[in-house]
Amino acid sequence: MKILFTEAVIIDMVDGAKAIQNGNLAVVDGVITYVGSALTEEEQDQYDEIVSCKGKAILPGFVNTHGHSAMTLLRGYADDLPLQQWLENEIWPIEAKMNAEHVSAGAHLAALEMIQGGTTTFLDMYYNMDAVANVVEQTGLRARLTRSCFSFGDDALRKSYLEEATSFAEKWNGSANGRISTMMAPHSPYTCDPDFIRQSIEKAVELNIPIHTHMSETKTEVELSVREYGARPVEHLDKLGFFDIPSLVAHAVHLTEEEIALLAKKNVKIAHNPGSNLKLGSGIAPITQMIAHGMRPSLATDGAASNNNLDMLEEIQLAALIHKGQHQDPLAVPAKTALAMGTIYGAEALFLDKEIGSLEVGKQADFITLDLTQAHMQPRTDVISHIVYSATRTDIQDVYVQGRVLMKNREMRTIDAEKIIFEANQAFENLRG
Amino acid sequence: MKILFTEAVIIDMVDGAKAIQNGNLAVVDGVITYVGSALTEEEQDQYDEIVSCKGKAILPGFVNTHGHSAMTLLRGYADDLPLQQWLENEIWPIEAKMNAEHVSAGAHLAALEMIQGGTTTFLDMYYNMDAVANVVEQTGLRARLTRSCFSFGDDALRKSYLEEATSFAEKWNGSANGRISTMMAPHSPYTCDPDFIRQSIEKAVELNIPIHTHMSETKTEVELSVREYGARPVEHLDKLGFFDIPSLVAHAVHLTEEEIALLAKKNVKIAHNPGSNLKLGSGIAPITQMIAHGMRPSLATDGAASNNNLDMLEEIQLAALIHKGQHQDPLAVPAKTALAMGTIYGAEALFLDKEIGSLEVGKQADFITLDLTQAHMQPRTDVISHIVYSATRTDIQDVYVQGRVLMKNREMRTIDAEKIIFEANQAFENLRG
Ligand SMILES: [Zn+2]
Ligand SMILES: [Zn+2]
Repeated sequence: MKILFTEAVIIDMVDGAKAIQNGNLAVVDGVITYVGSALTEEEQDQYDEIVSCKGKAILPGFVNTHGHSAMTLLRGYADDLPLQQWLENEIWPIEAKMNAEHVSAGAHLAALEMIQGGTTTFLDMYYNMDAVANVVEQTGLRARLTRSCFSFGDDALRKSYLEEATSFAEKWNGSANGRISTMMAPHSPYTCDPDFIRQSIEKAVELNIPIHTHMSETKTEVELSVREYGARPVEHLDKLGFFDIPSLVAHAVHLTEEEIALLAKKNVKIAHNPGSNLKLGSGIAPITQMIAHGMRPSLATDGAASNNNLDMLEEIQLAALIHKGQHQDPLAVPAKTALAMGTIYGAEALFLDKEIGSLEVGKQADFITLDLTQAHMQPRTDVISHIVYSATRTDIQDVYVQGRVLMKNREMRTIDAEKIIFEANQAFENLRG
Repeated sequence: MKILFTEAVIIDMVDGAKAIQNGNLAVVDGVITYVGSALTEEEQDQYDEIVSCKGKAILPGFVNTHGHSAMTLLRGYADDLPLQQWLENEIWPIEAKMNAEHVSAGAHLAALEMIQGGTTTFLDMYYNMDAVANVVEQTGLRARLTRSCFSFGDDALRKSYLEEATSFAEKWNGSANGRISTMMAPHSPYTCDPDFIRQSIEKAVELNIPIHTHMSETKTEVELSVREYGARPVEHLDKLGFFDIPSLVAHAVHLTEEEIALLAKKNVKIAHNPGSNLKLGSGIAPITQMIAHGMRPSLATDGAASNNNLDMLEEIQLAALIHKGQHQDPLAVPAKTALAMGTIYGAEALFLDKEIGSLEVGKQADFITLDLTQAHMQPRTDVISHIVYSATRTDIQDVYVQGRVLMKNREMRTIDAEKIIFEANQAFENLRG
């Protein structure tokens, strides 16, 4: 099947964000075979199907590099509480009750919301991950999945966690026509002891997959690390060899200049979660400093319980706004950089940039279209500025992964939205008891 | 005409934000006559029309307390530049070319966008304000309008500005069936000399209307004031008597504790513009400190050139997020406070809280409905949290002002959207030359 998408403003995210007016994008068997200015009529005749994208932009699908899709079930549950009280009295007790069916219901709701918001690839770290993998397989999304582990409990329990994480990673890596890849993920340096982290690194090396963790999210966590290990989380993880293999850390809010330099040198990937970090009062990550060190931080929503949505356009906008405000510098994180963070930098952070993240010949046809005709997108000045600063998630019109359409003019093609919403509410009621 | 809105989740914003399940709202001749739990069938029979709002929330329309609607034409024009370069080389030169037709085109585009985003009342300070007043009259919106003045130029020019501002305020105050009210607005302490500000205050007293200005938006502006007048903007304006009459200041980003205490004591109203302050790199206003002093800051978008949209839900969300992040305190500006800032505090800031800002018997029927059935609003946990942290502007379904429907199921009822968008683009092309 050879499909040609025509009359679009194409933002390919190759060598920065720039717009091709009246662009054409060709897809053959799920792979991009042409991106550029309009083909001749004769050339267009060779395609099985021509899809006009008049009044729309085409851009790479958003890549959400950190989250917990099942937690979508806990959106708005026990909001606006102090962090420890929220986690210990509200979130952890209800999470302890979540079985595979709950996780499936939450992941379905997340998939629906992510597709509607233009996300084509997401990272998920949680438990009962087979349920999430099944959702990815069914819905047509692309994902980097990992069984998140604590190291609490006796030796047998710890061993079972690690085995579960390893066998999940092994079983699903490369599945769903290559749309699922996996990684290892000790939850964090404050919930996993050094031995457990070391073993997780070994397993990642064995399976030749990357490793992921939460790091330096709150001030308290950094203080705890110093007290416990005589080292801040970056130094602690570095000593364990975490950064010697392909690694991605979520949050990275509380960093020193030296730590940023080290992370940059070791080519560590960053999942910046501006919405979640703001809402939980964790702080604002030093993104401008990371960029100054040549890093290419990605963007993520974290779980909906702390966000409270999975809207990557909002994260892109927050990334473009909050660092300007914090540094009192209107040049901090320009629109083009924010858009790169949500697309190509995201693909790099998940070590998938050979396949996705930009619109280039040979890459997977993971892309979205965005309506440019609405009032808030006028006048037609700078399309990239409009997308970053003014667009809203419902401007996303069509979503394609591997050339397969998941949403067409905002109609879901692989998902029964009504059923998912019904079942998510049922699952939540059941959880809340 | 007696209309009853039924089966809604009503958030009345009386005594804080709380939700009435299965609520009824009655409107007779543009005025609210009942808000509360469901009436009996017999009571419902007495209404001419019953409008079911099943699956929707009803809340007061948003009040946008600072902006320049005509600048919607400049959305995305010369973004991501240093502030002075942006203003002096880009914005001011193109603004100098804006005539009444440009202003009308921009205000129409703004009105369309505001209605689509659930704003029912807005403040506008600009020039060629007759054009804006006409747009308000035609579209059915409510507004507090003011001719913004610089004091540049010779005596004759200064006098003509003041006369224009005064005659505009006098002519339009109370017009459009009471939907238009006016105020005076010397642009700022750095663009208006003390004499001019004093005269503006006198005119406001004469006409018994409030006064508005930009204040303490940037660090540079504060330093300039100290150099020029030996006083920071707050002290400078206070000495001129600005705060001795009903007054509203926009931005108030750079304030000391003493200044906040003074503003609180004098009951000065605040228009907090989080999006604009972030984007221009102005900083983050001390909203939590204002609230601690008993102030009730309102929310605003500022002009679309620095935002880049007129989306009040986004400002509400930013207000609920950025102060938590800045102070590393998840309890800063709770969802309920943010929603109050966008509604009832806004009405107070415009000195219109006897008429609008909450859903109460006797107040004007200015309200909106919001779809609660979408994926990102599930599960049904905390509706106020969902509206503040997760909703998006297209969730707004219906918009009423004085009981008149301006938008119904997202269809515009007083506005030709296509024509407005076409003319806005024409006007911009004409301006850019
Ligand atoms: Zn997380
Ligand atoms: Zn302004």
